[in-house]
Amino acid sequence: METKVNLAEKFSLFQEHWTPKIVGELNNQQVKLAKLLGEFVWHQHEHEDELFLVVKGTLHIQFRDREVTLQEGEFLIVPKGVEHKPVAPEEVHVLLFEPASTQHTGEVESDLTVKHLERL
Amino acid sequence: METKVNLAEKFSLFQEHWTPKIVGELNNQQVKLAKLLGEFVWHQHEHEDELFLVVKGTLHIQFRDREVTLQEGEFLIVPKGVEHKPVAPEEVHVLLFEPASTQHTGEVESDLTVKHLERL
Repeated sequence: METKVNLAEKFSLFQEHWTPKIVGELNNQQVKLAKLLGEFVWHQHEHEDELFLVVKGTLHIQFRDREVTLQEGEFLIVPKGVEHKPVAPEEVHVLLFEPASTQHTGEVESDLTVKHLERL
Repeated sequence: METKVNLAEKFSLFQEHWTPKIVGELNNQQVKLAKLLGEFVWHQHEHEDELFLVVKGTLHIQFRDREVTLQEGEFLIVPKGVEHKPVAPEEVHVLLFEPASTQHTGEVESDLTVKHLERL
């Protein structure tokens, strides 16, 4: 995959929330883009650390004992096994970096769970 | 590592070119930031794909048969085994994603090779 990816262009191709799109793959890891709005479900990833990089907007990531707020140009790595819940009072654009095996709702099956992510 | 990372703040902490700084680790992969200026060396990574995301400026990545130009907000994945040479006529700030094992000059030993990368 030696074609460059323009983040803004990829974000313009979809409007749904909480449905990460795969935009790159390397070393069995994937780069995904997602638009978030509202509250996600509490979940954890047993075996995968997950990186959230905010490209636009403000994202709150709640943990059981605290909350981290990310602005544009900030990222957070959520370690495997740590329960978290992303919350976006207004729409946020995020870039995710995680293993290809990662299910976005972790071990939780919810109405928000998307089994097969689209590639853009 | 549940501390958020602000890219602009990390970039403000160093001025050297071609010396990637480790700012995050997940799933045996690392997130690195680098400032580039001028021409790097031709090299390849035998076993690691490498992602370049331009945070500021314009980066040219030369391949033996073509060149890709990346602007702010664009990324390119250079597959393992593919010779490439980053060129930055003016200073560029890039974010790199790659396995922790990746040596930045690949299999090439050069004056630019930094053996032990600093963590910021």
